[in-house]
Amino acid sequence: MNHPLDRTTQLVETAKGQYQGKITQDYANMVGPFGGTIAAVLVNAVLQHPERLGDPVALTVNFAGPIADAPFTIEAKIARTNRSTQHWLLTLVQEGETAITATAMTAVRKPTWSSQELPFPSVPNADQVPINAFGNVTPWVRNYQLQFTQGLLTMNQAHRADSSLSQLWVRDQPERPLDYVSLTAISDVFFPRLFIRLQQPAPAGTVSMTIYYHADQERLAAVGTKPLLAQARAQQFYNGYADQTAELFSDDGHLLVTTNQLVYYKA
Amino acid sequence: MNHPLDRTTQLVETAKGQYQGKITQDYANMVGPFGGTIAAVLVNAVLQHPERLGDPVALTVNFAGPIADAPFTIEAKIARTNRSTQHWLLTLVQEGETAITATAMTAVRKPTWSSQELPFPSVPNADQVPINAFGNVTPWVRNYQLQFTQGLLTMNQAHRADSSLSQLWVRDQPERPLDYVSLTAISDVFFPRLFIRLQQPAPAGTVSMTIYYHADQERLAAVGTKPLLAQARAQQFYNGYADQTAELFSDDGHLLVTTNQLVYYKA
Repeated sequence: MNHPLDRTTQLVETAKGQYQGKITQDYANMVGPFGGTIAAVLVNAVLQHPERLGDPVALTVNFAGPIADAPFTIEAKIARTNRSTQHWLLTLVQEGETAITATAMTAVRKPTWSSQELPFPSVPNADQVPINAFGNVTPWVRNYQLQFTQGLLTMNQAHRADSSLSQLWVRDQPERPLDYVSLTAISDVFFPRLFIRLQQPAPAGTVSMTIYYHADQERLAAVGTKPLLAQARAQQFYNGYADQTAELFSDDGHLLVTTNQLVYYKA
Repeated sequence: MNHPLDRTTQLVETAKGQYQGKITQDYANMVGPFGGTIAAVLVNAVLQHPERLGDPVALTVNFAGPIADAPFTIEAKIARTNRSTQHWLLTLVQEGETAITATAMTAVRKPTWSSQELPFPSVPNADQVPINAFGNVTPWVRNYQLQFTQGLLTMNQAHRADSSLSQLWVRDQPERPLDYVSLTAISDVFFPRLFIRLQQPAPAGTVSMTIYYHADQERLAAVGTKPLLAQARAQQFYNGYADQTAELFSDDGHLLVTTNQLVYYKA
C-alpha cells in the first residue's frame, strides 16, 4: 500500500457491496480528481467484491457531477450472474448526490481462436524517447512517466494541426506492476483532444468513458512495470461534445485496452 | 405508428419512469430480438420521459441475459440533472430477471467551435451500389436496405481476409425519416466481425454497446430518409471477447455516430 495509486483507490467495506473511499490529493486534477482514478476506484470495488465472477472485460463510467475532496460511498450491485459472466451496476455518491454512475462486466475467459487486427503503431522504442514533464499543468500527471512520440501539448499555437492524434509511452511513477486498477487509470491518461487541436487549454471534461479490457491476468503479469504504448485521437467535435478513441498496447505489441470517451468542451 | 420500427419500440407508461414494451417478431434475431431494437427501445424510454432534458449524447447498453418473445418492463431513473445535462440509469426486466442494464446521457448542445476529424470514407454513391439480400440469414435484416461496398458476408471461405472492415449504405425498409430511435437501432446493424473474418457464422453476441451521438435534431432532419454510410471493424479478438468500432455518416459527409461494442464469441 505504499504506491500513491493504491492509497488513492483504497476502499473500506462498510456493508455488503458498499465501500467508502477518497481520492488523495496526489491525483488531483484542475477541477476534482483525475477521472482515471475514479474509474480505477470503481473497478477496484468490483475486484474486491466477494461474489465477483471472472475478470473485468468492460467498464462504462459516467461523470454525472463534480467530486469534492472528501470521502464518497460506492455501491456495487450485481445485476446478473450467468455461467461465465457477471453484470454490475455501480454508483458513487457524495454528500447525498450521485456523482458517478457506472456499469461493469466481468467474465471468465476460455482459450479460443484469437487475432489482433490493429497493428502496433510505428513508434520509436521507449528507451529512445525523452521524458516529458507536465507537473505544472495538473498534479495527477506527476504519477506517470510520459514519453510522447507524437501529439505533444506544447501550448505553442504554431503547433496546431488538423490531427488530434497523440502517441506516448506511459507507466506509473514510481513503477508499479500492471493490474486492472492501474490499467483502468492509464486508460484516461490522455489530455482532452481539444487541447491538442488548439494547443491551448479550454473548458473540457470527460462525461462518459468506456473501457474494453483485452488482457487476462497472464497478459498483465507479462507487462509488469514495463511502459505501455498509448494512443488517442478524436473523430468528431460537434457543438460541445467530442469523442476520443484510444488504445493501450504492451511493449511487445499486444493490444490490451480499447477505450472511448465522450468529452464536453467549450471553445 | 405504421412502420415496423415504431411498433417494435412502442412503450406504454405504467408508472412514472416505468414502461412496458415488447419487441415484435419483425425484428427477431437468431436468438432473441435484434440488439439494435433493444437499444432503440431503451432510448425511446428516455425520449418519452416527461422530465427529460436535452437530446441523447451517450448510451451504453449491457446485454446481461436473453430476452424472450414476451413483454418486458423498462425502468428509466434520472440519476442526476445538471444545468444542461442529465444522466440516466435504465434496466430492462423480464420474468423477474434483469436482462439489460444501461446508462444514458442527454444534453442541450450549444453552438461552439466544431471540427470533424474523421473523413467520410472513399466509397461509391448509394445509387451505384447493388442491394444485398440477407433475409435468409436472420429476420431483422429484412427491415433494412443494405448495400455493401466492402466486407460482405458471403459465407464463402475463399473470401476470408485479415481485415474485418465492412462498409455499407443502410436505411430503414420501408423508408422512415431518421430520428434518435432509428439511429440507435442502425448503430447495431453490423454482423459480428467474427463472421466477416471467418466468412461463416459462429456463436457470437454483443455483450455491451456504447453509442455517442454527434447529431442534433437539425442534422437528423437533414438526413430524412436518405441512406447512411456505415462502417465497422474489430481491433482485437482475444479468448472469447472481441471489440467492434463503428461509425455512421450522413450521405453529405457528417459523422453522426461513433459506436463501440464488446462481443462474446467462440470460434
